[in-house]
Amino acid sequence: MFKATIFVTLKDSVLDPQGVAVKGSLHSLGFVQVQDVRIGKRLEVLLDSESREQAEEQVQAMCEKLLANPVIENFAYEVEEVA
Amino acid sequence: MFKATIFVTLKDSVLDPQGVAVKGSLHSLGFVQVQDVRIGKRLEVLLDSESREQAEEQVQAMCEKLLANPVIENFAYEVEEVA
Repeated sequence: MFKATIFVTLKDSVLDPQGVAVKGSLHSLGFVQVQDVRIGKRLEVLLDSESREQAEEQVQAMCEKLLANPVIENFAYEVEEVA
Repeated sequence: MFKATIFVTLKDSVLDPQGVAVKGSLHSLGFVQVQDVRIGKRLEVLLDSESREQAEEQVQAMCEKLLANPVIENFAYEVEEVA
């Protein structure tokens, strides 16, 4: 069994309205030191793959097909074997 | 200037309907090896703090006050100095 931890983040050139909103809320709570907020996704996927290589190939394909929008998002992942 | 990378994840005991939906989509795309999907948030916050200690204190307070719901979510963070 393998566990993939996948990070999906907006590309730097893409405006992050959610991040802008959170920044405003933090400022109104008094956290005026905050200069910028960027929000992305962290996914944990448990895979019953034959090998680490197969797990990595599957995760790459999942990201390309569903989990990340290639136009506006980047993705990165780590795969580890779990009991 | 400091950059905090914050991970907000659902507690293990909490059902993740979004994760269940993504798991179903992955299965329908043929990724039948997927056993479980858990989805959380990854935030990057840029802080103009005096010191690393002050940045860490501010991040802890932000998570407790706004970024994480203590009833259903856990949070963890890393703080690094940036130019």
